[in-house]
Amino acid sequence: MKKTNIIVGQSGGPTVAINGSLAGVIRQAMRSEEIGEVYGALNGIEGLLQRNIIDLRASMTATDDFDRLAATPAMALGSCRFKLPPPPNDAYEKILQIFKDYGIGIFFYIGGNDSMDTVKQLSVYFKERGEDIRCVGVPKTVDNDLPVTDHTPGFASAAKYVAASIAELDKDSSVYDMFSVIIVEIMGRNAGWLAASSVLARETGCAAPQLIYLPEVAFDPENFLAKVKDYSKKNQLLIVAVSEGIKTADGEYVSAAGATKDAFGHVQLAGTGKYLEDLIKDRLGCKVRSIELSVLQRSAAHYASATDIAEALRIGEEAVRAAIDGKTGVMMTFERVSNAPYLTRIGTVAIEECANLEKTIPAEWIIDGCDVSEDMLEYLRPMVVGRSQYFEVEGMPSFKNLDKTIVKK
Amino acid sequence: MKKTNIIVGQSGGPTVAINGSLAGVIRQAMRSEEIGEVYGALNGIEGLLQRNIIDLRASMTATDDFDRLAATPAMALGSCRFKLPPPPNDAYEKILQIFKDYGIGIFFYIGGNDSMDTVKQLSVYFKERGEDIRCVGVPKTVDNDLPVTDHTPGFASAAKYVAASIAELDKDSSVYDMFSVIIVEIMGRNAGWLAASSVLARETGCAAPQLIYLPEVAFDPENFLAKVKDYSKKNQLLIVAVSEGIKTADGEYVSAAGATKDAFGHVQLAGTGKYLEDLIKDRLGCKVRSIELSVLQRSAAHYASATDIAEALRIGEEAVRAAIDGKTGVMMTFERVSNAPYLTRIGTVAIEECANLEKTIPAEWIIDGCDVSEDMLEYLRPMVVGRSQYFEVEGMPSFKNLDKTIVKK
Repeated sequence: MKKTNIIVGQSGGPTVAINGSLAGVIRQAMRSEEIGEVYGALNGIEGLLQRNIIDLRASMTATDDFDRLAATPAMALGSCRFKLPPPPNDAYEKILQIFKDYGIGIFFYIGGNDSMDTVKQLSVYFKERGEDIRCVGVPKTVDNDLPVTDHTPGFASAAKYVAASIAELDKDSSVYDMFSVIIVEIMGRNAGWLAASSVLARETGCAAPQLIYLPEVAFDPENFLAKVKDYSKKNQLLIVAVSEGIKTADGEYVSAAGATKDAFGHVQLAGTGKYLEDLIKDRLGCKVRSIELSVLQRSAAHYASATDIAEALRIGEEAVRAAIDGKTGVMMTFERVSNAPYLTRIGTVAIEECANLEKTIPAEWIIDGCDVSEDMLEYLRPMVVGRSQYFEVEGMPSFKNLDKTIVKK
Repeated sequence: MKKTNIIVGQSGGPTVAINGSLAGVIRQAMRSEEIGEVYGALNGIEGLLQRNIIDLRASMTATDDFDRLAATPAMALGSCRFKLPPPPNDAYEKILQIFKDYGIGIFFYIGGNDSMDTVKQLSVYFKERGEDIRCVGVPKTVDNDLPVTDHTPGFASAAKYVAASIAELDKDSSVYDMFSVIIVEIMGRNAGWLAASSVLARETGCAAPQLIYLPEVAFDPENFLAKVKDYSKKNQLLIVAVSEGIKTADGEYVSAAGATKDAFGHVQLAGTGKYLEDLIKDRLGCKVRSIELSVLQRSAAHYASATDIAEALRIGEEAVRAAIDGKTGVMMTFERVSNAPYLTRIGTVAIEECANLEKTIPAEWIIDGCDVSEDMLEYLRPMVVGRSQYFEVEGMPSFKNLDKTIVKK
């Protein structure tokens, strides 16, 4: 192919690995003689439409800039929640014009399900118009719910943080000689991968989490209470890991049952963990505390998985190779070759096979609706190995920021 | 002094540095020819009274056992909330008998304010009885509220975690191009040291936390709302760090104003952060989220300060030296020699000068009731430097557990 310029954007919710993939794209692009300018779109498609385009080479001048960018949580380019509407829509022509103005022949979009839909729509549009503009999706999500790919960058780091935090909570909560319950609410509306990853805490030798509840299985409050009561008879501590998205058999979110009024009389959802805390207090009267890991679990770059960040960089680099090889309308994927040693092969999948689809936990990996199997442990173990590099100056994180000077054309 | 046995206990709330001090006591005791057996009391004074006494030498056999113990959060010996009642009380005679049975000449108690009171009571009792049993308090608390000592082990690690988490939250929350407010609730009922330490996040170059509210200053909700409104006009993100213990001018906890009914009709406190979230929603209607760092901030050994853990070990070692030198009825202290380079001198203070007393933030270090001064930054900076060693096996923490076989006498 003749020399072309590229542009990369980030979209959807933050993870700690999404800048790793950005660093991978930039590094491989700067290494490739087929590629000229390396542009970034601020705030995804939304910023692209406003020509908020920056020169990424300008930001990468020091030897450790790629690693520092990879160690920076969230999105250095900013994000958007904008999903490109299906054609006909003015946006497509506008984007084509912008790409022509900037000489862009390849578009990379790092994101989750919705972002892959944008990659799909644009690749179809460019093909129909006979334009050689290649569109490649680079997956990321803490939820690990993208289909086809074995797993998704960003997930393993969140999993490592969740599991280690639970192991630490187990130590923290074991110091007193009395029964208590801790409910840890973990992200995941429809897929329970992240809550399931809490099982890794047991690798430290503790029994926590003793119960794991996932959105894949209907939640039965009475059964749950019975289990808590059983534990209260024989244990000093019970840690429950629960997906925010668990639902009862009638399909209602458990958090919806916790609808209550705040101090100002407004009805609001209590949150799944808080609701279970209140349920235990009301029915069993035992000591209970709920902890919401909140956005900490997707932003804790200080405890990212080295394996995850390395893979995020690698899949970004491979995305550039795939595009140069002529791929378009694809999402990059991991295929697991082996667990010991841990080896993955990076490939591509036609974007239609993954856009707008969700991958949940296989039913056979869930035990009695409140635990996960050895298969899940085997799947998770290799992905959390190692602590990724985290840059500090005088004890505080040193993040990489991009030069956001807009390049006008 | 002739060879004597020692016993050490841990008490109060967990921190990530309290096992560091335990490791320091054990290591120095095992090095000292004046010391014979090294005992540990399970669950503090409570376990001591039940003769739940273990042999600590038995647990320390591998080269890295001291460092692994120091990298384990919470209390390896377990804790208690039991405060020895003032004499006359049977407990004193009972403890004396136990100490005689085990040949114990030195008692170390690692804890906070209440634990120092126990050290005081016991040291007075032993002196009055003419017994040469020395009692030395080793300070710890995430709250940093012990008087006389420059700071307290456990605090700096929590400070580092709080500040880095806020810097990461700033990245996470900055990805969208819209105004939002994040309230981060931080531990501290009466002293705001930990909430104030959030200011270190600014060392990373971000503006967060833009507002810091401490229990040392009366909280004015209307003034707070006015400030949030001002920020909404000019900013994309506002992060507020708030101590759980802030009070209004009439001395009421702000969290008390958030009294509400849960889904089961029980009145409960909303929590300070949640109340401020609801207040902003009700009065300003802007996008707001509250995050409670909960017990994560005191148990996150995976991001402990290397300076803090090293000091915790060192103060444990010095406690043994002080006791061998004949000190009793004292608490170990840090005195700051200089900031650049950071140097501290370890000394002792008569326990009466610190038991049951609280140290709050100097009024002149607080700016406009919602920020802290350069003095606070200078005080905090050197204490968070470095990441302490954290042991992992296959990507998960590897904690040190003690052999809890009870030694009967």
